[in-house]
Amino acid sequence: MTDPLRISATYRLRVGAGERSHRAQTLALEQSIEMLASSVTDQHVLDKIVARVDDVTTEIDGTHTARLALSIETIGDDAGQLMNMLFGNSSLQPDVELIDVEMPSVVAQIWGGPNHGIAGMRRHTGALARPLTCTALKPIGSTLEALAEMCSVFAASGIDVIKDDHGWANQSAAPFAQRVRACQRAIARANGARGRGQALYAPSLYGHYGEMRLQLDLARREGVRVVLIAPMLCGVATLVALKQEFDDMMFIAHPSLAGLPIAPAALLGKLFRLFGADAVIFANHGGRFSFSRDACRAIARCNTQPWHDLKPALPTPAGGMSVERSAEMVAEYGHDSMLLIGGALLAPREQLAARSAEFVNAVAVAAGDAVLVH
Amino acid sequence: MTDPLRISATYRLRVGAGERSHRAQTLALEQSIEMLASSVTDQHVLDKIVARVDDVTTEIDGTHTARLALSIETIGDDAGQLMNMLFGNSSLQPDVELIDVEMPSVVAQIWGGPNHGIAGMRRHTGALARPLTCTALKPIGSTLEALAEMCSVFAASGIDVIKDDHGWANQSAAPFAQRVRACQRAIARANGARGRGQALYAPSLYGHYGEMRLQLDLARREGVRVVLIAPMLCGVATLVALKQEFDDMMFIAHPSLAGLPIAPAALLGKLFRLFGADAVIFANHGGRFSFSRDACRAIARCNTQPWHDLKPALPTPAGGMSVERSAEMVAEYGHDSMLLIGGALLAPREQLAARSAEFVNAVAVAAGDAVLVH
Repeated sequence: MTDPLRISATYRLRVGAGERSHRAQTLALEQSIEMLASSVTDQHVLDKIVARVDDVTTEIDGTHTARLALSIETIGDDAGQLMNMLFGNSSLQPDVELIDVEMPSVVAQIWGGPNHGIAGMRRHTGALARPLTCTALKPIGSTLEALAEMCSVFAASGIDVIKDDHGWANQSAAPFAQRVRACQRAIARANGARGRGQALYAPSLYGHYGEMRLQLDLARREGVRVVLIAPMLCGVATLVALKQEFDDMMFIAHPSLAGLPIAPAALLGKLFRLFGADAVIFANHGGRFSFSRDACRAIARCNTQPWHDLKPALPTPAGGMSVERSAEMVAEYGHDSMLLIGGALLAPREQLAARSAEFVNAVAVAAGDAVLVH
Repeated sequence: MTDPLRISATYRLRVGAGERSHRAQTLALEQSIEMLASSVTDQHVLDKIVARVDDVTTEIDGTHTARLALSIETIGDDAGQLMNMLFGNSSLQPDVELIDVEMPSVVAQIWGGPNHGIAGMRRHTGALARPLTCTALKPIGSTLEALAEMCSVFAASGIDVIKDDHGWANQSAAPFAQRVRACQRAIARANGARGRGQALYAPSLYGHYGEMRLQLDLARREGVRVVLIAPMLCGVATLVALKQEFDDMMFIAHPSLAGLPIAPAALLGKLFRLFGADAVIFANHGGRFSFSRDACRAIARCNTQPWHDLKPALPTPAGGMSVERSAEMVAEYGHDSMLLIGGALLAPREQLAARSAEFVNAVAVAAGDAVLVH
């Protein structure tokens, strides 16, 4: 990465060996000028705008890896435009997958990453030296009273982050404004009685940038410090604008609608962090989703490793996890992670408090944290 | 579709025959309450919130088709939330694909479809009885002078819609404000000299809802009547809000980043129309992309067929099309379509005017439109 005006994008090509160079060249044109280079009359465009094929390698499985250099001049500072130039049209082509993205530090600073990251999530919860615990308010359709009661139990049990299920928007059973008020107040009350640490409530944002600004304003006034956002639903430029404008708030990114042919480590690991996610939820292996163990470890590594002076994001494995797997997950992801267990704490419902406390204790024990909450 | 409170979503399941019913049930839970139904204690949630499996059928190719009824109560009026509940989490599961979506008319009216649709595109261009012609300003990186000159040639040649290439955002070579001014004025001048019809300039929106509002304001002041927007980049809720707020403007939807496991007819054919696209660009078969002929015809059919009193959207086949294929495309898509040819008009560059006129004439001839522009 010596060219300060280029972003390096790596793609997997599923074509015959004889086509690999040609395919890399057509990809470079597709993801920049969308026309034949031979029809371009402007030398500046040929030199500075057309994506450059830096390398094409054949892998052991017979696929090919093409590394392209995309011109930052085609992107400017818009995160949506970065997605557009990385994989906009090619997402529609079945023989190509985006597997990595890299950039010079000066380019990474355009988006700047999380405002708070892992340190912020630790400071606000008081979970300073162990993996964080997270759960979700389920099911959508619950009444405000049921949600507030659930919040009280979760917070009293010592869980660090209590987030809306990602299906919560502005449902009539518990509209956003009333839900935020009821849940935040229930958690604040429970926090007052807690021995150490503070539970955080993370409401789920919905709609477009204009609506989300109002939701953030309202949530902030209620004392909320962290929110849930699905960047692929609302557009990545929305996340960037909100994290810049609400720089005292933290953002947990949800992978809803992220099922594009993009390697999870590139999208959830790097790009979500780049755009400002303080924590990144991903589907852990062995649950309801099919991410491989290697893919999950790569996401966590990309969330946390030193990268252009961006703050690390908190990897948050989820998706059908159980209390019984807590120790395994702590061993897998280490202390700089947040374990998210949702539905398993609710089965059976009458043991909610007991299951929640088990979860908190299991993580504390696995992390070697001697002082248990219960 | 007799249940006014449900949206019907159809999925293809790639599982063994013995698993099909169980998989349909887990899908119904994933796309609604994200927990086991057995852990739900609220009868209202079980009756009204949990997605219902209406039907599971095994197809001749061994896959299974599951039809689910999603509760409108989980969605409200937010388009992003509709995507979330249709396919948010399941987009991450490799054994499932969203292949169709249907809803009662009262639900379709929530989003309302295009404000203008095909009739609006015809009225503003004067192309009343034939397929419309469209081209793109390429390559990104061109100077304002080069773009204005291209606009003049395209408009003088009789092309109906001259759109920004979808890679245009706010590049320094031709920032949005200057580009809109230069292109719109060049086209207005050429329109003044045209025998019949008016070319429209369609600039490409970028960023988030807040930025796009400013771009639309600026473009409208310059006399622009139609814009290009990529709903999967900016979020579908952004398109809905903008088409409601700028109801005198028309929106051409671009499929950038639409490469999810969703049938093109469902996403580009139905949902883009539902959310307000007046025209929908899609990758025609036989070009640089791999949509099948059947998929393309299904998109066009879903754009145009009578559907809940929504105005029809203009199907716009594109993606490596040539003047020589104009007659075939007219035969394929009929008069209610817009043919988009970009790069092929620029090869070779010095024949831009001649190639553009050939395109316009080829469409007119194929459509049996006796009065040729040249």
